[in-house]
Amino acid sequence: MIGTIRRKPKLYKFDLPIRVMNKDQFISYFLGFVDGEGCFNISLKKQDSAKMRWVLDPVFHVTQHKNQRELLYKFQRMMGCGNVIKKYGQPDTLMFLVHSRKDLVDKIIPFFKKHKLIVKRKSFEIFAEVVEGLNQHQHGNVQDFRKLVKKVFVMNNKGKYRKYKLKEVLDTLGSSETIRQT
Amino acid sequence: MIGTIRRKPKLYKFDLPIRVMNKDQFISYFLGFVDGEGCFNISLKKQDSAKMRWVLDPVFHVTQHKNQRELLYKFQRMMGCGNVIKKYGQPDTLMFLVHSRKDLVDKIIPFFKKHKLIVKRKSFEIFAEVVEGLNQHQHGNVQDFRKLVKKVFVMNNKGKYRKYKLKEVLDTLGSSETIRQT
Repeated sequence: MIGTIRRKPKLYKFDLPIRVMNKDQFISYFLGFVDGEGCFNISLKKQDSAKMRWVLDPVFHVTQHKNQRELLYKFQRMMGCGNVIKKYGQPDTLMFLVHSRKDLVDKIIPFFKKHKLIVKRKSFEIFAEVVEGLNQHQHGNVQDFRKLVKKVFVMNNKGKYRKYKLKEVLDTLGSSETIRQT
Repeated sequence: MIGTIRRKPKLYKFDLPIRVMNKDQFISYFLGFVDGEGCFNISLKKQDSAKMRWVLDPVFHVTQHKNQRELLYKFQRMMGCGNVIKKYGQPDTLMFLVHSRKDLVDKIIPFFKKHKLIVKRKSFEIFAEVVEGLNQHQHGNVQDFRKLVKKVFVMNNKGKYRKYKLKEVLDTLGSSETIRQT
């Protein structure tokens, strides 16, 4: 369809209740929703096949009861990426989830750099630094990877709820020499 | 200061980060925040001194980490009512809480009737009906009070997490005759 101009929708309509917001209002609504309920998360997983034996796995998501799927689809549509999926282990809960590295880099991060959060600003900034670092293949170099891991531990309550301790991860990473020799 | 005109602030500024929203944006942000994190709650308490032996206690609140107190104060300022207090048993959590019946009737309910929520719309509507009912002294009449109690049990997951079961409450209420005779 060469030559076709796809116009972006300017209004966000909800059927139940009948509710219309313009784009500026919907962006502000989304920012409030994300500040209240959204999550920028980077999980740290052991993976022996990975060069560093650890993998950083960033994801952005917003959860909601399945009755509110319409809202999650609106978020997905506005952001132009991600999926609406069931939350593992919680059959009544859905998530608007963005996992694709490319979408995080190209869409999610630029959006929240332009439209700034309040509550989750700091978490987002660290998230963005780590995702951009991974995108620049900093996980291929031990020293840079150590820096990324340290950043991840500062996010979301300073690693309080993480499965692994920072020291444990850094110890197994060792120096750049150790990794290169293995 | 007779004759002084107090102008309402039109901008909501945040120092950290530097962030300015106009009133329309801040209202939309607040709606998103409330849909994600806010709560319209009506607790049901046994109280032998009350005419019906049960008391309905409505409250609206938004919780947040104490680091975000500035945001809660902004909500308080915009709504022109309520308090920012510590959450019981959670020393790091603050709440913007509106408990005053008058403020709920005069400020909170009209605000959310004008600026409609999406996720919590239904909860809010029942909340508003019950609060307005209490304001019209429907809790002084058994039949009306039974209706209010039934409404409360429809809110927030249909009473699933309530301490008392609906039947138990209605049974103790009995008919209007029973109460009148006691």
